[in-house]
Amino acid sequence: MSGFTPPPYGVFSRPGEAPRVGVKVGDAVLDLAAALGDDVFAAPSLNPFLALGRPVWQAVHERVRAALADGAETIPLAEVRSHLPFEVADYVDFYCSLEHASNLGRMFRPDEEPLKPNWRHLPVGYHGRAGTVVVSGSPIRRPSGQRAPGPEFGPSRKLDIEVELGFVVGAPTELGERAGSFEDHVFGVVLVNDWSARDIQAWEYVPLGPFLGKSFATSVSAWVVPLEALAHARVPGREQDPEPLDYLRRSAPWGLDLEFEVTLNGQVISRPPYRGMYWTPDQMLAHMTVNGASLRTGDLFASGTVSGTEPDQRGSLIEISWNGAEPLKLTDGSTRAFLEDGDTVTITATAPGPGGERIDLGEVTGTVR
Amino acid sequence: MSGFTPPPYGVFSRPGEAPRVGVKVGDAVLDLAAALGDDVFAAPSLNPFLALGRPVWQAVHERVRAALADGAETIPLAEVRSHLPFEVADYVDFYCSLEHASNLGRMFRPDEEPLKPNWRHLPVGYHGRAGTVVVSGSPIRRPSGQRAPGPEFGPSRKLDIEVELGFVVGAPTELGERAGSFEDHVFGVVLVNDWSARDIQAWEYVPLGPFLGKSFATSVSAWVVPLEALAHARVPGREQDPEPLDYLRRSAPWGLDLEFEVTLNGQVISRPPYRGMYWTPDQMLAHMTVNGASLRTGDLFASGTVSGTEPDQRGSLIEISWNGAEPLKLTDGSTRAFLEDGDTVTITATAPGPGGERIDLGEVTGTVR
Repeated sequence: MSGFTPPPYGVFSRPGEAPRVGVKVGDAVLDLAAALGDDVFAAPSLNPFLALGRPVWQAVHERVRAALADGAETIPLAEVRSHLPFEVADYVDFYCSLEHASNLGRMFRPDEEPLKPNWRHLPVGYHGRAGTVVVSGSPIRRPSGQRAPGPEFGPSRKLDIEVELGFVVGAPTELGERAGSFEDHVFGVVLVNDWSARDIQAWEYVPLGPFLGKSFATSVSAWVVPLEALAHARVPGREQDPEPLDYLRRSAPWGLDLEFEVTLNGQVISRPPYRGMYWTPDQMLAHMTVNGASLRTGDLFASGTVSGTEPDQRGSLIEISWNGAEPLKLTDGSTRAFLEDGDTVTITATAPGPGGERIDLGEVTGTVR
Repeated sequence: MSGFTPPPYGVFSRPGEAPRVGVKVGDAVLDLAAALGDDVFAAPSLNPFLALGRPVWQAVHERVRAALADGAETIPLAEVRSHLPFEVADYVDFYCSLEHASNLGRMFRPDEEPLKPNWRHLPVGYHGRAGTVVVSGSPIRRPSGQRAPGPEFGPSRKLDIEVELGFVVGAPTELGERAGSFEDHVFGVVLVNDWSARDIQAWEYVPLGPFLGKSFATSVSAWVVPLEALAHARVPGREQDPEPLDYLRRSAPWGLDLEFEVTLNGQVISRPPYRGMYWTPDQMLAHMTVNGASLRTGDLFASGTVSGTEPDQRGSLIEISWNGAEPLKLTDGSTRAFLEDGDTVTITATAPGPGGERIDLGEVTGTVR
C-alpha cells in the first residue's frame, strides 16, 4: 500500500435507507457493503468491523484501495447523512496537556501549585458519559445546572469547548488482562469537542470530578481515521521528567504531529498543536488497563484539551479568554469570553501525508441552541 | 395484585442452552419466554424488556402472578447459571450518605472540613466504568497500580468494598429532555459492591475523581427487584438542610427502609441501614438529567456507600477499620484492615413486605483472587 492513505471509515445513509458502513473518499462515499460484499459493513455502526482486529482492518484497507483503483462507484457526500460512526462503550477523558492542566490549575485553584503531585507520574483521567457522545453537526443545547459559586440554578453562563483527539478501541480484552500494544487495540482516531459548562463544573467537581458540567454532550467527527493514515505523523513523544514507571514506558513513537484549527463562526481563533502533548496515547491505554480493567469494542478515550505553549494555541475558551478576563475580539466587532447562543464551533485537523502534503483528518462541528 | 410481591427478574441459562430472562421464585426460576411466550424474554439480557416502560412491566408482573398461581413449571435454581441481568449503558455512582462522605472526608482530607461546600446542595456523583460491572459470584482480581503516597507501583494493599444500592433505568429519554418521574424511568434495584482500591484512589483522584481505584470491578446482584416489590419499604426521605433547589424537591416518598447485612468469610461485620441516606434516588435521577443528559435503557446509577451513624453500620472497610487504625477482629482470630486474597464478601438486604415480614432482596458476593 505504499503511497496509499486509507480513507476514514464512518456510517452513512441515503434518505429512506438504513445506515451502513462506508469510507469517505474526497467528497464522496464508497458503500463498503456494496463494494466489498461483506455483511459486517451492512451494520448501522462500525462496531462489528472494529471487533475484528488489525490484520483484518489492514486487509480491508487494501481491498478498499483495490476497489477504488478499479473505479468502484461512489455516492456524493451531499446525498448522504452521517451518523455516529460507532456505538460508544465506555468513554474516558484524559488530561494530557501540561499546558492545559497548568492553565486550568491556575484558574480553578489559584492558591495552589497548578499541577497536582500525581500529574507527572500518570495520565490523569476519568470516565465521561458514553450515552451523550454525538456525531459532528448535532445541535448543542446549553445546559442548566447549579453554577459556581453555588448553588444558584440556571443556564450555564460559561459554555466552553475542549479541542481533543479521541482514540477508538476495536479489539477488546478480557477482565483482568492488561492490554497489548496500542496498535493491537486501537483502530483509529476521531476529532473531539468535549463541550464543558465551566460554572457548573467549578461548583460540582470536588471531590469526585466533573459530572454534569460535561455530561450534556461530547461531539466527535463522523469519519474515523485509521492509524495507518497517521504513519507519517508519528514522532517520539515529548520528553518526560521524571521518567515514568515501567508500565508507562514508551516502546514505539506515538507522539503525533497533528495540527488542529478551531473556528468560531468561521473565524480562526486557535491552532493547537498535538505533538507537544505530555502523555502519548499508548501511555493512556497502558494506564487505563494496568488495573485489569477490560476494553470493549467501541471504547473511546480522548486526550484531554490540546493546548500549546502560545496564547494562540489554546484549546478552550476558558484559556483563550483567561476565564473571561481577556475576552476574545471577533472580526464582527463582538467579543467572547464563552459561547453565546447561535455560535458555531468547528474543529479541523491535519497530519503529514506520505508526500509531504497534509492529510485532512475531518472536522467536528456544533452550534449552540 | 394486593399481597403479591413481584419476584425479581434476571438472566439465566441451563448447561448448553442460551441465556434468557426469568424470574426467581424462592429456590427456582420461572422461564418467562416459555411461560409467557413473548420473544422479548428470549433475549440474553433484560434490556429489551426494560425499554418497554412501567405499564408493560406492571402488566408482566400480573401475568407472572397468574402463571405462578396456575402452577407453571419452574427450574430449580441449582440447575441454572446466573448472568449479568442487563447490559449496562452508563454507570453513575453517587455519594449520598452524609455519614460515609463525612468519614471519607476526615480520612482523605484531615486538615479540611469533611464535607465540601457543594455536598448539601446537590447529590455529588461521577461516572464509573460500565464495561467492568460484573454479576454476583464473579471472581475479583486484586488490581495493581500506583499506590499512595505515589508513585510506587504494585498490587493494592487497601482493597475495600462499598455497600450500595443500584437503580436500573428502563425507559430512556431524548438528549436535551429532563427525565420524568422516578417511577417512569426506573425499573428496579440491585445490590452493588463497588470494589475500591483505596491506595490507588488516594493518589490518583485529584482533580478529576476516582478512576483506576474503582474501574477494575463493580459487582451487582443477579436478580433485579422491581420497584413494586419495595412498595412497603417507601418512607419519606431524610430531612435536608438547607432545603434543596426546586428541581431537587421531592414529590413522593422515595426514602427506602432497607436493611443491608455484610459478611466477610461468613461472619457479619456490618448492618448498614438505607433509610438514613441524605439524598433519595428520585433526587439522584433529577440531578443526573437536569443538564439535558439523556438516559438509556440499561443505565445504572448507584447510591454510593451506605453507612449509618453507628460504627457497626458502616458500609466500607476503610470506615470500619478507620483506614487501618482499628483493624476488625474476626472470630478465627485474624484481623482485617482491608481485604486479603481469598476473602469472600457477601452483601444481602431485606425490605418490609406486605404483611410485616421482610422480603429478601438477594445478594451480591465476590471472592478476592
